[in-house]
Amino acid sequence: MTLSSIDAARLLGRLRELGDIGRDADGRLTRLAASDTERGGRDRFVSWLEAAGLDVAVDRIGNIFGIWATEGIADRPPLMLGSHIDTVINAGIYDGCYGVLAGLEVIETLKASGYMPGRPIVVAAFTNEEGVRYAPDMLGSLIYSGGLDLDAALATIGTDGSVLGDELHRIGYAGDREPGFLKPHAYLELHIEQGPVLEREGVALGAVENLQGISWQKVTIEGDANHAGTTPISMRRDAGYAAARVVTFLRERAKASNTPTVATVGCMAFEPNAINVIPSRATFTVDLRDPDEARLQQEEAALADFLDTLSSEEDVTISVERLARFEPVMFDAGIVAEIETAARARALSCRRMTSGAGHDAQMIARIAPAAMIFVPSKGGISHNPKEFTGDDELVVGANVLLDVTRKLTQGE
Amino acid sequence: MTLSSIDAARLLGRLRELGDIGRDADGRLTRLAASDTERGGRDRFVSWLEAAGLDVAVDRIGNIFGIWATEGIADRPPLMLGSHIDTVINAGIYDGCYGVLAGLEVIETLKASGYMPGRPIVVAAFTNEEGVRYAPDMLGSLIYSGGLDLDAALATIGTDGSVLGDELHRIGYAGDREPGFLKPHAYLELHIEQGPVLEREGVALGAVENLQGISWQKVTIEGDANHAGTTPISMRRDAGYAAARVVTFLRERAKASNTPTVATVGCMAFEPNAINVIPSRATFTVDLRDPDEARLQQEEAALADFLDTLSSEEDVTISVERLARFEPVMFDAGIVAEIETAARARALSCRRMTSGAGHDAQMIARIAPAAMIFVPSKGGISHNPKEFTGDDELVVGANVLLDVTRKLTQGE
Repeated sequence: MTLSSIDAARLLGRLRELGDIGRDADGRLTRLAASDTERGGRDRFVSWLEAAGLDVAVDRIGNIFGIWATEGIADRPPLMLGSHIDTVINAGIYDGCYGVLAGLEVIETLKASGYMPGRPIVVAAFTNEEGVRYAPDMLGSLIYSGGLDLDAALATIGTDGSVLGDELHRIGYAGDREPGFLKPHAYLELHIEQGPVLEREGVALGAVENLQGISWQKVTIEGDANHAGTTPISMRRDAGYAAARVVTFLRERAKASNTPTVATVGCMAFEPNAINVIPSRATFTVDLRDPDEARLQQEEAALADFLDTLSSEEDVTISVERLARFEPVMFDAGIVAEIETAARARALSCRRMTSGAGHDAQMIARIAPAAMIFVPSKGGISHNPKEFTGDDELVVGANVLLDVTRKLTQGE
Repeated sequence: MTLSSIDAARLLGRLRELGDIGRDADGRLTRLAASDTERGGRDRFVSWLEAAGLDVAVDRIGNIFGIWATEGIADRPPLMLGSHIDTVINAGIYDGCYGVLAGLEVIETLKASGYMPGRPIVVAAFTNEEGVRYAPDMLGSLIYSGGLDLDAALATIGTDGSVLGDELHRIGYAGDREPGFLKPHAYLELHIEQGPVLEREGVALGAVENLQGISWQKVTIEGDANHAGTTPISMRRDAGYAAARVVTFLRERAKASNTPTVATVGCMAFEPNAINVIPSRATFTVDLRDPDEARLQQEEAALADFLDTLSSEEDVTISVERLARFEPVMFDAGIVAEIETAARARALSCRRMTSGAGHDAQMIARIAPAAMIFVPSKGGISHNPKEFTGDDELVVGANVLLDVTRKLTQGE
């Protein structure tokens, strides 16, 4: 069987073209959600949708949809392909845009080939996935899946003081469709990995079977600020040392556990932060992630137990504040298997994996069977101008998206 | 044998009187070296020296001396008692001032009792001990012992942009004596402990036999800033975790060593310091102290070895910058024994100890046998308005200073 392929030049050309919208004089790419530069990206995307002969729809939270519905199937639940085109500050060109443009590319390829899908195929670009300008992140897909009140979301104040609803009006993307107006039959998101696993293992594709649950906590340890010279070790209540013990505990536990659990202490501050004063206070964050909810709860409990023990061993006072908590998301096993099958048919190496980052797919998974396909990220780098995936790797990913799309839209 | 005593009311009264010079409208005490408020303290001290009938001398770095030389002994090397009357910002009333005023008190007591010393007795107040306004700290006693060039010291620019020499002129304390003009036969400094040991052990006095050497280093660890969700533990180059390992290494080593070594990590900073980013850089300080130079070097070497191992184990780059290094100071064993004898004679508990903080005594020890006497500090607190030593404890310390002074000035 000969497999058809997407138009590599068209896909890569659009990726670069979109990647030039929002570059400042220093060459830095920034397209924050609902900003003027993002309007430029949206307008270009919509022009491509129209040129491809798709029906364009925009919902009230600004999500954009390009709909391909051939005669007689318009009422069937569509297969939805999608991601986002907003970016972080000083971004790379792949994050989100790759999935959106590959979705469009797949539809155009199928259309041009005379394919007759059994259900509509839709490409979606969701609003404010990055969450840099408005909180929470993945806002557009969260609203679409009914997870947040629309009016509250439209009233969200951005980091720049702007109101999301006003900004959507201003840039012409306050649509009239109700979020959720198309209930997907299934949802597929192609994305760069944003991690180092595929590259280091030399694997072409990831069939993403789940997405880590996230637990964010802020820990504050209080001891005594005493003189570094005159206070014997045995008389210290050293908040900094106690904090260091938490950092090493988390790492040793994660290392010994033989599970995909990851634990990170990213923020750390000592007070008074003076060279010759024992820290009276240490404040730090703990980021725990695991694709299994029971295990994530186990890790949280183990940390709580350790903090209890530490508090008495080091005679310090410890308080914990929960900053964020998301349960893991299980993707659809059937779709994951189709991704593996499609990769095998093209003789591509493929591994099941967990997404360590959040994606629109986790929100749409609330209302439809969903899964993701990952392609390698050079050095695991993302949210950075150095974000990079090779052209061949991008094309490979889009071709597998094409195959799975065909599979999921065959017959009725 | 009945032991005589100092005039407790006079000593405590003067301590409180001096402690009120330099209080601002909010009640905060600040007498920075060579400032207007410190001139007030100096003037008061000099007036007390004159009222006591002592010869007042001021040297070119502003050190003040009150000299009691009875007939026929003026040419003999004096016993010097002393400390400093400059303070930190928002200080307590005891640090330094207690030793200076107790020195004066001892001389007045001996004088009034008809005692005929075998050598002159001098009370000294050294310039800029705290080092808050001018660097280095202990500047006056360092100059006095010949450890620093006088002209360079007079040209020192303060944290407020002032020049030390100009300020000494302005406040009238640029004296005409050459620093070191009196070479002490011995030097005794009575001081509050500024640490918790005496209080926690319920011991009245410390016979200070040495002063810790200090090693200050700044350590910078460089790893990779990667995504906290997508980067497996095994692929991390986590500068923050590596820094935490140094903190726990230092503590565990100090704890296991059964030596007076103390190690403190007082400053810590992570970069980029974001909750979901693995730290790419951790910068922290290491304060190592030990009264034994060979052991201090051993500790420095052990840290260097550990950093080497850590660098390869965690695949991080580590650089170390030396910030300060002072060798330990050994005080005079004979004087230390006299302090113990004097304490015993008054049925006071006394323990040998190490000074964890720097003092003028360590500078004068360069040119004369020296030792220190400590009295308890409540909660170990110092450099703080909460600095406190009970009146009885202050009087006990001054009486022991009286006894040792008598002992060291008997006969010839």
